[in-house]
Amino acid sequence: MTAAPSIDDRRYVLSLGCPDTTGIVARISTFLTDVGGWIVEAAYHADADTGWFFTRQAVRASSVSMSIDELRERFKAVAAEIGPETEWTLHDSGAPKKIVLLVSKEGHCLHDLLGRAAGGELPAEISAVIGNHEDLRSVTERHGIDFHHVPFAKDPAERGPSFEKVRALVDAHNPDAVVLARFMQVLPESLCEHWAGRAINIHHSFLPSFIGARPYHQAFARGVKLIGATCHYVTAELDAGPIIEQDVIRVDHADDVADMVRQGRDIEKLVLSRGLRWHLEDRVLVHGRKTVVFS
Amino acid sequence: MTAAPSIDDRRYVLSLGCPDTTGIVARISTFLTDVGGWIVEAAYHADADTGWFFTRQAVRASSVSMSIDELRERFKAVAAEIGPETEWTLHDSGAPKKIVLLVSKEGHCLHDLLGRAAGGELPAEISAVIGNHEDLRSVTERHGIDFHHVPFAKDPAERGPSFEKVRALVDAHNPDAVVLARFMQVLPESLCEHWAGRAINIHHSFLPSFIGARPYHQAFARGVKLIGATCHYVTAELDAGPIIEQDVIRVDHADDVADMVRQGRDIEKLVLSRGLRWHLEDRVLVHGRKTVVFS
Amino acid sequence: MTAAPSIDDRRYVLSLGCPDTTGIVARISTFLTDVGGWIVEAAYHADADTGWFFTRQAVRASSVSMSIDELRERFKAVAAEIGPETEWTLHDSGAPKKIVLLVSKEGHCLHDLLGRAAGGELPAEISAVIGNHEDLRSVTERHGIDFHHVPFAKDPAERGPSFEKVRALVDAHNPDAVVLARFMQVLPESLCEHWAGRAINIHHSFLPSFIGARPYHQAFARGVKLIGATCHYVTAELDAGPIIEQDVIRVDHADDVADMVRQGRDIEKLVLSRGLRWHLEDRVLVHGRKTVVFS
Amino acid sequence: MTAAPSIDDRRYVLSLGCPDTTGIVARISTFLTDVGGWIVEAAYHADADTGWFFTRQAVRASSVSMSIDELRERFKAVAAEIGPETEWTLHDSGAPKKIVLLVSKEGHCLHDLLGRAAGGELPAEISAVIGNHEDLRSVTERHGIDFHHVPFAKDPAERGPSFEKVRALVDAHNPDAVVLARFMQVLPESLCEHWAGRAINIHHSFLPSFIGARPYHQAFARGVKLIGATCHYVTAELDAGPIIEQDVIRVDHADDVADMVRQGRDIEKLVLSRGLRWHLEDRVLVHGRKTVVFS
Repeated sequence: MTAAPSIDDRRYVLSLGCPDTTGIVARISTFLTDVGGWIVEAAYHADADTGWFFTRQAVRASSVSMSIDELRERFKAVAAEIGPETEWTLHDSGAPKKIVLLVSKEGHCLHDLLGRAAGGELPAEISAVIGNHEDLRSVTERHGIDFHHVPFAKDPAERGPSFEKVRALVDAHNPDAVVLARFMQVLPESLCEHWAGRAINIHHSFLPSFIGARPYHQAFARGVKLIGATCHYVTAELDAGPIIEQDVIRVDHADDVADMVRQGRDIEKLVLSRGLRWHLEDRVLVHGRKTVVFS
Repeated sequence: MTAAPSIDDRRYVLSLGCPDTTGIVARISTFLTDVGGWIVEAAYHADADTGWFFTRQAVRASSVSMSIDELRERFKAVAAEIGPETEWTLHDSGAPKKIVLLVSKEGHCLHDLLGRAAGGELPAEISAVIGNHEDLRSVTERHGIDFHHVPFAKDPAERGPSFEKVRALVDAHNPDAVVLARFMQVLPESLCEHWAGRAINIHHSFLPSFIGARPYHQAFARGVKLIGATCHYVTAELDAGPIIEQDVIRVDHADDVADMVRQGRDIEKLVLSRGLRWHLEDRVLVHGRKTVVFS
Repeated sequence: MTAAPSIDDRRYVLSLGCPDTTGIVARISTFLTDVGGWIVEAAYHADADTGWFFTRQAVRASSVSMSIDELRERFKAVAAEIGPETEWTLHDSGAPKKIVLLVSKEGHCLHDLLGRAAGGELPAEISAVIGNHEDLRSVTERHGIDFHHVPFAKDPAERGPSFEKVRALVDAHNPDAVVLARFMQVLPESLCEHWAGRAINIHHSFLPSFIGARPYHQAFARGVKLIGATCHYVTAELDAGPIIEQDVIRVDHADDVADMVRQGRDIEKLVLSRGLRWHLEDRVLVHGRKTVVFS
Repeated sequence: MTAAPSIDDRRYVLSLGCPDTTGIVARISTFLTDVGGWIVEAAYHADADTGWFFTRQAVRASSVSMSIDELRERFKAVAAEIGPETEWTLHDSGAPKKIVLLVSKEGHCLHDLLGRAAGGELPAEISAVIGNHEDLRSVTERHGIDFHHVPFAKDPAERGPSFEKVRALVDAHNPDAVVLARFMQVLPESLCEHWAGRAINIHHSFLPSFIGARPYHQAFARGVKLIGATCHYVTAELDAGPIIEQDVIRVDHADDVADMVRQGRDIEKLVLSRGLRWHLEDRVLVHGRKTVVFS
């Protein structure tokens, strides 16, 4: 799927979560049928643990007899009927999406996302890249994308102004995702809240193992036989946000830290690109500390 | 899940396939709501290639105000409304299921399934085991299960009477699945048809690679870096039936055929047990040469 | 490979670790050549982190012109030449090996190992099974293996006598491995030391994530996307011993704790059987908190 | 490891294959010890099937008291002693390596390799890129690498002159690897022979399944549950050369051909980059139709 789907590929995507009860599917599907909606993808999850129900439904945009705005307006009544706690979004997959990347010195995730964007594989435009170092300016600009350098103080206590600058640069684009592509800076709580549900981090370990700094060194010291990466939403608690995607790769005694770093990069790229795609396609529903991913 | 679920775990499971059109989900879910059905699992698939729609929905049995027979009776009208090509089943997950195993000399798949049955992990009872050799009699009988020895002639042309005997022994149980657990005999076309949709084979390669005899020898000769196994429905064309599940394991130059056989066994056991479970839980819908697996 | 290899499959296996320097391989291989040894497997690892060197070499027993005892006697001089810290063993793969299993109520790992033993796939004999409950007596005895029931007090402080009894029962067999096949009891420090390098545990998580009790519940609560299992040597620090093998399986939001328990069992069985095999074939060299596994 | 290793990372790498007999390891390791060689990596394989022995040994360059040329000169006598069929190479990992890429329209493998080269992760320089279409010129030139467009006739019978031009362009660089990075043209037999052991292809299926054109369409039609990619040496028989590396990714009924193409790209990139790295680090020894990969 590309950033500009053809008429036939264009979808209206409903994502919804609410306390579970009987009749929800019937209400939603009857509504969609009444507006002519041809369902091309539908997924459901009833969570016995929390008692919540989640669904994602994609209808062919061309099959619906009204605009997405009118559809949203009409769905409000259905959502109200389902219950006051209902959370929902209704997106047009044809509406352009934007992401902003925060980077540091390590360029593999940035390079990977630039390649996917160039190949029409990323369902969003990269609006800007912000780095706390200059290292990745040229690779970014080569792709015709703006690069902003925001230096950070050594002393964490003095980084406030830099974060304010990053916030302003990001918010100027009002992006659908703020991607910490190996940014290596811990976001202040205020930014975590401000970008809640939109800030996505790639952590270079299989969480909850090896939280914090130098996870490959921790993995090497422990002698694990697999290393991994985790794509998760950023929350105020370090590396503890809802997990979107994880994967691992096998290592053995012959792999030193440098080998783990090298092999880990491939997993980081895969996990981040999958997690980001699902986020951008409205396939990820967050509930509490966990996610429902209709991949 | 065990063969005897508690009241709360008991489900009525609807599986349905039909030419796709708008309103199918609405019709089905409205019907389920009308009978009080609390949906605990629901999955959909609209196949763009064939233009067919597939769904599986599981409702809590205790939430429905009528018997499964009455539910089936009532659903007939809905199915008719959806269209004349509609194929559907409605099963009570609490109804006991039965399987019959066909084996030869290799016991790992049999042993694995006996262990799962003993641990309450298999959603069916093993009614009987039929072997063309005596080798696996004792392990079978130790679990209190009947073992039938049906010798097969060396000459394939003279195996007809043996297959007739196997057919009679199997049909006496009217099983939900006839599992070829490394049976190593090619079923005649008539039996493939007779047990269509119920005969499940485990082939010890990643199909369509290495069809037929001695796939590990073929894999070794080709120098592949992964070996696999395939669980599929049996059809008249050898190893070409609809695939339910596949998986692979990494091998390298140091693995000889015996190593591949040993490692492959683990994949065969996993793939067969997963495929069989999904079949028994009505998660596999066959359409043409392919399956939809709502796992 | 079976417990009783043919003459041609019989190997003399040298495993050695020592501070690294030049000439070690030359010394060892010259020695092996001088006694006629035909090397069928050889593996090396120079660990840059610790400065240690490790090797495992398997020669065809029939190619060596002397007994294993004489070979050991002669190798002493080579080891002394290499240096005083050199640690080595020299094993005859044809010498029968024995294991004792400690179990509780969960039978899947026991059943799996019994099946492998019955199929000639385990390079050891299961000498006895000891359970702190009676649940697994019948499955054990059905395979003609002694089962000993040793009840454990509810109060951990009063379990000393039970552990003494277990120790006596195990030591009566002088086994090559003491396998905690989901034993669920924490070994006292004295037993960890007594069986150091021989006590092998299967932990039902991808360590170091989810140490201690109920790891699947922990995994479910955290919302991880993969669950795993870890086979490791038992040491006094809980779930922190040198890791032999790990593996994972994918789960998603639809999997509840019971689903994770069921799917996790398959990984536990695989990981334990692989780790145990490597241990029994002298493929695992422990150094500090880590292992070198010449698999 | 980068294209320009530090003094300490520099290795002399010996790769050798010969009919197996006793004493080979002793001879080689004694030789290496005599020249002061500090072995940092060593791997062996005795192939029971063919009766051949293979080894790869890497010594720290700084530990050896002579130049690589003198080392080669001296090793000739050892190789001769081992036997007349002995095949060996002795490479300096610090000597720069070069690759030439052949591409068509699909840019993901090219982009991936350019990123790895830019990140210092590829142990070679990309000397040139040759395309039968203009599509990938700009991404290549942006990285400061020459792009050559060589158009190909529609009629396969008329492509000879184009292949001659490609041959001349490639040979001008005398590269260590000619990488068909989704080139989509079948090399004529003469070129397969000319570049034997250096021409590396990435095929977008798990060979030997789905040889030839449109493998993802074939995979979709067959309904497989995993798709894969294969990195192999190019030989005259289509997609039948010695396999260096393979991997797979899970798909299901919901994945159409476009989804398989997209997901398959990630596997193609991984498999090609791993296979190419191993080739460039002299880790791949070819024997007949198979490879020994000391990864």
